[in-house]
Amino acid sequence: MKVSTSSILLAAMALPMIHAAKPKNYVFFLPDGYGPASETFARDYANYVDDATVKLAVDDLAIGLVRTKASDTLVTDSAAAATAYACGIKTYNGAIGVDDNYLPCGTVLEAAKLNGYLTGLVVTSRITHASPAGFATHVYDRDMEAEIADQLVGYSHPLGRVVDVMMGGGKCFFLPQSDEDSCREDDVDLWSIAEKTYDWTMTSSREAFDNLRNGESGDLPFAFIPTSSHMAYEADRDPQREPSLTEMAITALNLLDRKAKEQDTGFFLFLEASRIDHAGHGHDPIAHLFDILEYNRAMLAVKQWIDDHDDTALLSAADHECGGLTLGVPDYAWYPSVLTRAEHTSEYYAAIYKDIVHFNSTEAQRESLIVDRVFGDYGIYNVTPKEIAGLVIASSAAIYLGDLLSARAGINWSTLGHTAVDITLFGYGLNTAKMVGNHENIEVGHFMTTELGLKLKDVTEQMKSNESFVTSIQPNVEAKKLLKRFQLEHEHDVMQAHHTRKH
Amino acid sequence: MKVSTSSILLAAMALPMIHAAKPKNYVFFLPDGYGPASETFARDYANYVDDATVKLAVDDLAIGLVRTKASDTLVTDSAAAATAYACGIKTYNGAIGVDDNYLPCGTVLEAAKLNGYLTGLVVTSRITHASPAGFATHVYDRDMEAEIADQLVGYSHPLGRVVDVMMGGGKCFFLPQSDEDSCREDDVDLWSIAEKTYDWTMTSSREAFDNLRNGESGDLPFAFIPTSSHMAYEADRDPQREPSLTEMAITALNLLDRKAKEQDTGFFLFLEASRIDHAGHGHDPIAHLFDILEYNRAMLAVKQWIDDHDDTALLSAADHECGGLTLGVPDYAWYPSVLTRAEHTSEYYAAIYKDIVHFNSTEAQRESLIVDRVFGDYGIYNVTPKEIAGLVIASSAAIYLGDLLSARAGINWSTLGHTAVDITLFGYGLNTAKMVGNHENIEVGHFMTTELGLKLKDVTEQMKSNESFVTSIQPNVEAKKLLKRFQLEHEHDVMQAHHTRKH
Repeated sequence: MKVSTSSILLAAMALPMIHAAKPKNYVFFLPDGYGPASETFARDYANYVDDATVKLAVDDLAIGLVRTKASDTLVTDSAAAATAYACGIKTYNGAIGVDDNYLPCGTVLEAAKLNGYLTGLVVTSRITHASPAGFATHVYDRDMEAEIADQLVGYSHPLGRVVDVMMGGGKCFFLPQSDEDSCREDDVDLWSIAEKTYDWTMTSSREAFDNLRNGESGDLPFAFIPTSSHMAYEADRDPQREPSLTEMAITALNLLDRKAKEQDTGFFLFLEASRIDHAGHGHDPIAHLFDILEYNRAMLAVKQWIDDHDDTALLSAADHECGGLTLGVPDYAWYPSVLTRAEHTSEYYAAIYKDIVHFNSTEAQRESLIVDRVFGDYGIYNVTPKEIAGLVIASSAAIYLGDLLSARAGINWSTLGHTAVDITLFGYGLNTAKMVGNHENIEVGHFMTTELGLKLKDVTEQMKSNESFVTSIQPNVEAKKLLKRFQLEHEHDVMQAHHTRKH
Repeated sequence: MKVSTSSILLAAMALPMIHAAKPKNYVFFLPDGYGPASETFARDYANYVDDATVKLAVDDLAIGLVRTKASDTLVTDSAAAATAYACGIKTYNGAIGVDDNYLPCGTVLEAAKLNGYLTGLVVTSRITHASPAGFATHVYDRDMEAEIADQLVGYSHPLGRVVDVMMGGGKCFFLPQSDEDSCREDDVDLWSIAEKTYDWTMTSSREAFDNLRNGESGDLPFAFIPTSSHMAYEADRDPQREPSLTEMAITALNLLDRKAKEQDTGFFLFLEASRIDHAGHGHDPIAHLFDILEYNRAMLAVKQWIDDHDDTALLSAADHECGGLTLGVPDYAWYPSVLTRAEHTSEYYAAIYKDIVHFNSTEAQRESLIVDRVFGDYGIYNVTPKEIAGLVIASSAAIYLGDLLSARAGINWSTLGHTAVDITLFGYGLNTAKMVGNHENIEVGHFMTTELGLKLKDVTEQMKSNESFVTSIQPNVEAKKLLKRFQLEHEHDVMQAHHTRKH
């Protein structure tokens, strides 16, 4: 083939332009509580049941590591971590979209919205939980979920409505306290307010979700909130009632993309596999496993979607590890085969246990059913009398069962909380290769913001200048004292100290 | 500036040639037992004592992850892992440079040697330990360290001498059983044989090491083996007697580079921070910490060396995690400050404890000294009577002390062995960016081999055709039975099984 000088010249000249291209849409996918061992754990299981050489979908997308410490402790919670990703600042554990002085910080989602982008939050926890909240709301304590719900629909948000699509659990925070399903302590009927004042389509029905036809139909703003609290673990999910995370992710992508194209703009979408974390807190290997596998299915679907939409980029990283999962305890082996026995999570079998205790009168009846329908169905074979007795006195039947099954599988959970270990960064699409390496979580936020051509500082200033809002979200004197006390307990080990030592 | 068309054309044409360039020298640096939490652990400590924003030297070199399972278990040992890196094959735990049928496999170091490269092994364990052994020797069981020593000097290696530089501990395997320092069960004076028959300069003296003047002096083959068994942990090292790993690494680099340039060839150098792993097995936070910091110093030094020698590439990855280290147990914090108190490892203070018990007659004397000189100096303050009593009955005083200090620091070790978690891959220099992502450990071996233009298959065939050698390294019938039994215990969970399940 003959190639003319001018065509090569054009190719060479074009290089700088290619490098300067930016994605139009950004997806940030947070697998909450997904630590390094979580990935090996699920892959080893997949290798066992499917194919000894299979990789997880995310394996091929690994590009680096993320450092996660909060401003007040070396072990972050989901609130400080979400704020770090969203606002690009380090803050204290519990902080939702506020800095160490409880002042609001502009998020990448809010900056996108103010610049004409469409936005979405799609999660499997309550939509008012720390991670999604950190991207679109501002409260000093993550437990203020009613206030978070208020801000999510636009009701009390200083910037008005900043979210266009919401999918996840947590309906109870949208209902007035008169409703038996409510988690609120006031009479605000947020569900109706959202519909009437802020134009939301609010629905809990799987049918309404299906009517979106993978996002080919439907208008914005749209909220699908099928469950009162968190959505089900993937292993326990009833598909008649709840779609999978993958279905929600793809539906939201198509819906946002269609509407964004109509409006000649782009979108920012926050996705979360929220409950990988809950399973870690609960020492629940089956819940952990199947929520991880669903995260991988969703990541694969998003990757394939990007293959057809090369104006979209994806970054994905956990907020922190959870549970201190160790593979191979005590001795150079772990056994995925043990985890093939259970159909459901330990939470599910703990509920069966409670039913058995409640409805069966004789001890012999109870014990026989417990051995068969709880231990047996969960996969804990050859159960000893001591182990049965342990269940009766366990403060959490679910954690007790999870620990027992884990021990038989040769894995161990060393904490009920989070840990400090760096977590893995995944990326796909335009320019994400620039993030190869080890980064602070705030750098991930800075990168996405820059890629979308946004400035968070302007958003922060706009909110800070709203004095009544700033005042309204400040903790009172008593709350401030409590918050400071929690922080002081930890922060001396985060901050620089002036020690000298020989080594 | 005016740029002519032809100069741009030349630049464009040159691209394929740049991409095809290969490194002349390769360094593989193995931090044994360095898991994901190990990196965060040491960085958080460095942040505490030095600067709240400091990164570790390796942080900026992270390019991916490595999957580590062995052929017979999901949790590898150092022998199978070294063989995976060196030969590019999966094998069983305990295998040194042999496959599942106990047949020798050619290593990247051996292929390099046969192709005229110079080679080196620089470690802080015994030089006969599993990791260096896996790169240059072939035995069916890692505990056969006398045979490994024989092969290392060339005495019984089927390819003759394949190593040009050795630095590390383990002199006892080079001395005949008549020597009181010997670990051998035969009369072979390997030290003398190495000197007389294989032309090695064999030395244990720090002075002789210093006379290498960072590698500006000295001839090959050169062995520096300063200690009978492993070299000291960095935290306990006497610099009058033992150089640091960084000093040994740079000396070996300069020595090999000078000699390679004289011979118009390149080199392959295996470096190992061997004892990060031992500290994990021993639940010794101080040993773990300072061996990790020394690994980082050495990595930084190698990186800077490569900045001056751009014909050299570096890959670095652990073989596996060790100890199941968790940061933040039980509760959302860990305290590096606790680790600033001790000057030495728990092994060191356990030795002091033994001396106190041995040399002090009254119980009051002993207890006072133990509280002060063991617990106190190690940093375990406010020790309780129960904790003191625990030390007396502990099966390992060192592990007991390590666990106690770890608990006070808010960290936890969940196993005395290795774990299955993926470990981090680091790279620097020519073409190493090609290894971004998640790889099997054997792929790392394949990559280095290809980069050096080598073919391991030829080396394997050459050794397999040496019938007397192949026969000499086969286990006998009894040993084979034992090995097979160990493997069968594990392998059913590694291999593919045909299970079906609903999820």
